Amino acid sequence: MERSQAFLLINFKTYLEATGKHAVELSKKVEKVGENAGVKVGVAPQFCDIERVAASVDIPIFAQHIDPVPPGASTGHVLAESVKAAGADGTLINHSEKPLLLVDIDRAVQLAKQTGLKSVVCAGTARLAAAVAVSEPDMVAIEPPELIGSGRAVSKENPEIVKDSVKRVHKVNPTVRILCGAGISTGDDVYTALKLGTDGILVASGVVKAPDPERVLASFCEAVLRVE
Amino acid sequence: MERSQAFLLINFKTYLEATGKHAVELSKKVEKVGENAGVKVGVAPQFCDIERVAASVDIPIFAQHIDPVPPGASTGHVLAESVKAAGADGTLINHSEKPLLLVDIDRAVQLAKQTGLKSVVCAGTARLAAAVAVSEPDMVAIEPPELIGSGRAVSKENPEIVKDSVKRVHKVNPTVRILCGAGISTGDDVYTALKLGTDGILVASGVVKAPDPERVLASFCEAVLRVE
Amino acid sequence: MERSQAFLLINFKTYLEATGKHAVELSKKVEKVGENAGVKVGVAPQFCDIERVAASVDIPIFAQHIDPVPPGASTGHVLAESVKAAGADGTLINHSEKPLLLVDIDRAVQLAKQTGLKSVVCAGTARLAAAVAVSEPDMVAIEPPELIGSGRAVSKENPEIVKDSVKRVHKVNPTVRILCGAGISTGDDVYTALKLGTDGILVASGVVKAPDPERVLASFCEAVLRVE
Amino acid sequence: MERSQAFLLINFKTYLEATGKHAVELSKKVEKVGENAGVKVGVAPQFCDIERVAASVDIPIFAQHIDPVPPGASTGHVLAESVKAAGADGTLINHSEKPLLLVDIDRAVQLAKQTGLKSVVCAGTARLAAAVAVSEPDMVAIEPPELIGSGRAVSKENPEIVKDSVKRVHKVNPTVRILCGAGISTGDDVYTALKLGTDGILVASGVVKAPDPERVLASFCEAVLRVE
Repeated sequence: MERSQAFLLINFKTYLEATGKHAVELSKKVEKVGENAGVKVGVAPQFCDIERVAASVDIPIFAQHIDPVPPGASTGHVLAESVKAAGADGTLINHSEKPLLLVDIDRAVQLAKQTGLKSVVCAGTARLAAAVAVSEPDMVAIEPPELIGSGRAVSKENPEIVKDSVKRVHKVNPTVRILCGAGISTGDDVYTALKLGTDGILVASGVVKAPDPERVLASFCEAVLRVE
Repeated sequence: MERSQAFLLINFKTYLEATGKHAVELSKKVEKVGENAGVKVGVAPQFCDIERVAASVDIPIFAQHIDPVPPGASTGHVLAESVKAAGADGTLINHSEKPLLLVDIDRAVQLAKQTGLKSVVCAGTARLAAAVAVSEPDMVAIEPPELIGSGRAVSKENPEIVKDSVKRVHKVNPTVRILCGAGISTGDDVYTALKLGTDGILVASGVVKAPDPERVLASFCEAVLRVE
Repeated sequence: MERSQAFLLINFKTYLEATGKHAVELSKKVEKVGENAGVKVGVAPQFCDIERVAASVDIPIFAQHIDPVPPGASTGHVLAESVKAAGADGTLINHSEKPLLLVDIDRAVQLAKQTGLKSVVCAGTARLAAAVAVSEPDMVAIEPPELIGSGRAVSKENPEIVKDSVKRVHKVNPTVRILCGAGISTGDDVYTALKLGTDGILVASGVVKAPDPERVLASFCEAVLRVE
Repeated sequence: MERSQAFLLINFKTYLEATGKHAVELSKKVEKVGENAGVKVGVAPQFCDIERVAASVDIPIFAQHIDPVPPGASTGHVLAESVKAAGADGTLINHSEKPLLLVDIDRAVQLAKQTGLKSVVCAGTARLAAAVAVSEPDMVAIEPPELIGSGRAVSKENPEIVKDSVKRVHKVNPTVRILCGAGISTGDDVYTALKLGTDGILVASGVVKAPDPERVLASFCEAVLRVE
C-alpha cells in the first residue's frame, strides 16, 4: 500500500545498464524498493523492453516516446497502441533528447488519452511547461536540459525555475501533476523538489548509473516520506 | 530446409492487424508457409513486438528502423543493442516512411554491422539504391514511394527501375543483395521481380492487409520456386 | 494615414508569381491599395527578396521564418540579424508549412524580440494558439492547416475555432494580437474574421494567386473599414 | 583572366562579420584578391544577402542551401528559383551544419540542374563523398565535420581521407570536381589539398574570421599558383 502520493519515475534512456535483461532486473529492484517504502515508483524502459518488463513487475511502465501517428503505413514509428499492447501504462512525450514539433506534442497527448496511456510531457523552462500544460497531459516534467545528467539537481541549482513552473503550470491547468527532473541524485534533491510544490521526480542517470541503484532509490523514498 | 535463396520479408508497419498478439499470430503463419514451401521468409514487426515474436518463431526478425546513436542518454531512441537483445536478426534502414539523413544511413549501417544485425537499406530510385550501396549494407531494397501500398507492383509497373537498380547497385557493390518492394501483391509480381535479377521481396500491405495472408504468401513462395 | 488598426499580412510563400521581381511588383500593388484605403498592410516575401522589396516599399515586411540560432557557424540557416539587416520588420514563426519544435518556437520568439523583429507565431488550433501565446509573441495567427489554400475561409467554415482561439489566447495573454488565416479569399471572409474578434488577416493564395490581386485586396480593405 | 582552374569558395555561414553590408564588403575583398592573383574565387553569403552581393561583384555566388521543393505553398522554404533570381550561380547542398535526407540531397541536385545552378554537395567521409557523387552534382566538397572550424586542416590532419575521397568519387563519377574543406587556414593547407588531387577549397572561418581576410586569401591564391 502506498503511503504517499508522490511519484518517482525512473527513465532508463538507452543505457546498456538498463537494456534487455538488465531492464528487467532494474525494474524489479525499483519495484522492491518502492514496495518496501510504500512510495509510488515507475519505470520508463526502451520500446523493445516494455513487454518483458511488464511481464515481470506490477509498477507503472512508461514508454519513452510515442509518435503522433495513427495505425497504418508508418514503418519505423512508435504506435501508441503498440506500447499499450506491450503493457505500458503511459508515455513520456517531448523529452529534451527527443523533442517534438509543437503540433506533434499536442497530437501525442491526445493519442495517449485515446489509447488509455498516461502522458508525461517534458519541458525545459517554466514558460514551456505552461505551454505544454495547455494540451492537458496527466503530468508535466520540468527538466532544464543543461542540468540533465549533470549531477547538479535542478531543485537545488535553480529552485526558482521549479517554483515558477509550478505556478505557471497550475495557472493554465490546476489539475496537471508536476514532476521535477534533471540532475536529481540524492534524497535531499528529492526533498527539495517536493517542498517546491512538485508531485514527484523524473530521474535517469542518478539511479540507472549509480553503483547501487537500490540504495539511491531508497534514499529518494525516505525523502518522499519525510515530506509527507 | 530451404530450397531457395530468395528472401521474402514481410514488413508489419504499424498496421493494427500486425500489432501485439496479432504480430505473433501473423509471424507464425509466415513461418509455417515458408517452412512448407522451403522458402526463406522473415518478418519486420514493431519494436515493442520484437521480443514476443522472437519467442514464438525461428525465422529472421528485422526491426523496422534503428537510430544512429550509441548507448547512453538518448531517451526515446531505438538502440541497435536493444533490438538485438530483444531477438532481432536485422533491421530496415531508411524506409521511405522513416527517411534518414544521408550521414545517419551510413552510421546506422555501421552500427548494425557492429551489433551483428543484418541491414536492409531502402531506396526509392535506382540512383539512390546505388548511393546507399556505397555503405555496404547486406541488402538494398528498391521501393519507389509512389507505388508503396498501391497494389501496382513495381516489378510490373516499372521493370526498368528494377533492372537499372540491380545494374547500378552491383556496379557499386557486387555482393550486396537486392530486394524488390512496393505494390507487390501477387505471385506474378514476385516472379517478375526475381526474373529482373533481384534476390527477394519486401512486402507489407500485400500480405498484412490481405483477407488471407497465408494464401497470398503461399502464392509468393510458389513463384519463388518457379523461378529456380 | 491609416484609419484602421486591423492588419492585412500577405504571405508570398514560394509562389513564382511572387518571386524575384514579381515580389517587388506585388509589394508595390499591396502598398498602393493599403495607402488608398488607409488600411495597414504588410508582405512576407521569400528571404532572397526581402532586400529588394524593402528598397521599394515602406510597408511592414515580414520574413517567412527565422531559425532559432545565434550568429556563427550555422551554414544554410536564416539568422534573425540577417533578415533584419535586409530590411525586415518582423517574421512569421511556425507556419504549418515550416513547423518548429516547441522549444525552437520559443527561442525564435525571443530572438525576434532581441533583434527588434515583430513576431507572428502561427498555430493550427485554438489550443495551440494558446500554447504559443505563452511565449508572448506580438501576434498569433490562427490557421487550421486543412483550410490553407482551400478557398474556404476559416472565418466562415469554422467560426468557433476563431472565437475559441481569441478567448484562449487572450486568457493567456490579453495584449497579443490575433490574425486569422486559411482560406480567406473575399471581403466577406475578412469582415467575418474581424467581427469574431481578430485583429487582422494572414492570407496567401487568396491574393497572390488571384487574377487581379489589387481588386481582391481592395475588397479586403473595404471589409476592414466596414467593421470600424 | 584566370590563370588557374582551382576554385576557392568562401562560405560566409551566419557570421556577423559577413552579414548584411559586411557581406558586400567581404565579397569585394574576395573578388579583388582573386582578380589580382588570377585565381577563381567565389562566395556563399546568406540568403538575404545574395542580391546585394550579386549587385556588387562579378565572381560566382553560391547559396548556402536550397530546399528540395518546387514553387508553390512552401512558406519559409528556400526555392532554387528564388536564389537564382537573386543572382546566385550555384548552391551548397548538405553542409554538415544543414544536413539533408538522402532523398532530399538528390532532389536538390536535380532542382539545381533544372534551375541552372551549380551544385556543391558536402560530405564528411570518403564513403559519403562517393554516395553523393552518384547524384552527379558539379562538385563534391569533402569536409570531415570534426575538423570544421578547428584551424587544423583536413589536408594535413587527415590526407588519407582526402586521397580516398578523390579516388572513390572519381570511380563513381570521373567528371565531378572535388573541393577540400574543414580547418583550412594557411596557404600550405591549400597547397597540400590541391596536391592530394582536389580541385579547390571550401573555407569559412579561416577567411571570414581572420584579422586580415585579404592577406589570408592572398596566401591561398599564391598556393594555388605554386601548384600549377
